[in-house]
Amino acid sequence: MNYYVLTLFPEMIESGMNTSIIGRAIAGGYLSLETVNIRDYSLTGNGRIDDYPYGGGAGMVMQAEPIYRAYEDLVQRIGKRPRVVYLTPQGRVFDQHMAEELAQEEDLIFLCGHYEGVDERVLEEIVTDHVSIGDYVLTGGELPAMVMMDSIARMVPGVLSNQESGQYESFQDGLLEYPQYSRPEEWRGKQVPPVLLSGHHGNVDRWRRDQSLLRTLKNRPELLERAELDKKDRRYLQSLLDEEGTQQDANGLTAEEEKFLAKLLAI
Amino acid sequence: MNYYVLTLFPEMIESGMNTSIIGRAIAGGYLSLETVNIRDYSLTGNGRIDDYPYGGGAGMVMQAEPIYRAYEDLVQRIGKRPRVVYLTPQGRVFDQHMAEELAQEEDLIFLCGHYEGVDERVLEEIVTDHVSIGDYVLTGGELPAMVMMDSIARMVPGVLSNQESGQYESFQDGLLEYPQYSRPEEWRGKQVPPVLLSGHHGNVDRWRRDQSLLRTLKNRPELLERAELDKKDRRYLQSLLDEEGTQQDANGLTAEEEKFLAKLLAI
Repeated sequence: MNYYVLTLFPEMIESGMNTSIIGRAIAGGYLSLETVNIRDYSLTGNGRIDDYPYGGGAGMVMQAEPIYRAYEDLVQRIGKRPRVVYLTPQGRVFDQHMAEELAQEEDLIFLCGHYEGVDERVLEEIVTDHVSIGDYVLTGGELPAMVMMDSIARMVPGVLSNQESGQYESFQDGLLEYPQYSRPEEWRGKQVPPVLLSGHHGNVDRWRRDQSLLRTLKNRPELLERAELDKKDRRYLQSLLDEEGTQQDANGLTAEEEKFLAKLLAI
Repeated sequence: MNYYVLTLFPEMIESGMNTSIIGRAIAGGYLSLETVNIRDYSLTGNGRIDDYPYGGGAGMVMQAEPIYRAYEDLVQRIGKRPRVVYLTPQGRVFDQHMAEELAQEEDLIFLCGHYEGVDERVLEEIVTDHVSIGDYVLTGGELPAMVMMDSIARMVPGVLSNQESGQYESFQDGLLEYPQYSRPEEWRGKQVPPVLLSGHHGNVDRWRRDQSLLRTLKNRPELLERAELDKKDRRYLQSLLDEEGTQQDANGLTAEEEKFLAKLLAI
């Protein structure tokens, strides 16, 4: 996977992507990253790339031509026209499925906007994908581009070791991750759950799956509606309901969670 | 607003937050940023802060004690216990409302996890808010922490100029932004919409609002359901429906969009 980033802050991108797994993948040749400074394509030669918005209003708008020149220079050099992702709250919302889809590409260009926005005409001309990483406003496209590159890179073969690749199965299943524990067995009076020390793999797996179900129910119930639940999953969820009203109500479901669960299990 | 970040990659955070509006706000004294390297609190003194997960499985888990020591050292030093945000796909999903809420705090601590996760017990001990920036898996908590800090900072008084503050009204209204245009009037055969050159502020505002409505309908219709629509907004949306089936169908609604709109306007 070759990433190209059109940006006003190349050093921010480079520093952010050189850490941890991503830096290792670049060093190992599984990924490449090239930043293009849009300012180098300023029309006035003094680095200025923005101007007032037509129709008035606050702030400045990035002009079409410097971005277009930066883009054309890049595609001429690499000899192809990859998909161009523009980071914007107006876009399709990024998720793990989109990460998997984009990981199939050989090359991706990210265009990072700033100021009030970018002249619409250059977006019409070069952008193939308008993408938002979430419903919040950010200063520029650099952080969202880094978020996308990190997430997509993890799906590129070779970037994660085999061991690491399996790790987010649960999340990809549509459930939240189970809790993790490491040494020591007792930490400030808190014990590791005994099942994790039992050496019984079947029980460990079942406990982890149940914890994933419980967390998803408590934090993101809407994910549970779309998850694939087998017979054992449904039996565990049923047991949560059966506990209700008894003294062993250790999982402490709220009335709302109980209602949600009863409805889910009735389907 | 004082940000504190517990992380394994302090240089990544510092480089990422020193650009643009955020860097300016730090320089201007509206924000402060301090990073704490968790590795400095390694138990073994050699920087190691992770160990195998109990119960088996891929990867390593960050241990409780180094994180706890880094946290305690920080809170002793600053003399208070601010909210602690842990970045995790298991968390409540971050949005503009949460950004506004967190911007009310004087201090915020961000805890960035890595590897397989973090020993659950230290999370129980120190974390007040589990937050996710979206439904995708990332290598660590650094990028999401930066995303949150950027978004929250924009809500802190003084960080944005008065001019800038007004800019995302539309998004905060629950609608997507209208398109922007800057010089020149004609760029590669594409014209700026004439209304923006008219000097008629009322018409400009109406056109922009209509464009916001149209974009929201096309890209994020679910936002339209929750938005506050006045009489003029409804009239514009009705006009989109009326155009359907005629030759002037310039906005090209799909059958699905048309159906959605009819239902929305019927309420």
